[in-house]
Amino acid sequence: MIAFNNLNKAFESRIRLGVMSILLVNDWVEFATLKEMLNLTDGNLASHITALEKLNYLQVRKQFIGKKPNTSYAVTQAGRKAFNDHLNALEQLIKAREG
Amino acid sequence: MIAFNNLNKAFESRIRLGVMSILLVNDWVEFATLKEMLNLTDGNLASHITALEKLNYLQVRKQFIGKKPNTSYAVTQAGRKAFNDHLNALEQLIKAREG
Repeated sequence: MIAFNNLNKAFESRIRLGVMSILLVNDWVEFATLKEMLNLTDGNLASHITALEKLNYLQVRKQFIGKKPNTSYAVTQAGRKAFNDHLNALEQLIKAREG
Repeated sequence: MIAFNNLNKAFESRIRLGVMSILLVNDWVEFATLKEMLNLTDGNLASHITALEKLNYLQVRKQFIGKKPNTSYAVTQAGRKAFNDHLNALEQLIKAREG
């Protein structure tokens, strides 16, 4: 069960899978965009983002656009590596199904 | 984010992914075998199996081998379908990485 052991607990949640998938292929995505793409509440998204930030998988950029605060996120190099490892492990798990 | 919405919350946990992956390709697997393959404690494995049973994704068979009780599990048809749908959604998510 190599694939199983290589799954990363940090990415178990569907929401984190969603966030990381979006950020893997997009540079700097706004909070509001993530929220809309994943159809989440502020609180739910924020708590998962905070967890991923603490793990150093995400970086945050806060700025003002005019007078409006604007927060965006990007994956870190560590986050990209960890998530790719996780997807590779999932890929192995899926392949196992096909025999 | 079609793939994201098709992910099944019941299979978020690594342990459940592991259990279902094993049962998808093996008929009737003993509790002790699952425990060993996934390197889990009794309690941890039991709680996830109970959850999957309640969802009607697993069926249980209790018998005696000599005087020893023996419990085995198999996926139900509903479990097979649900888990395959989940793996298909994960597959889409993985493909998205490749652009």
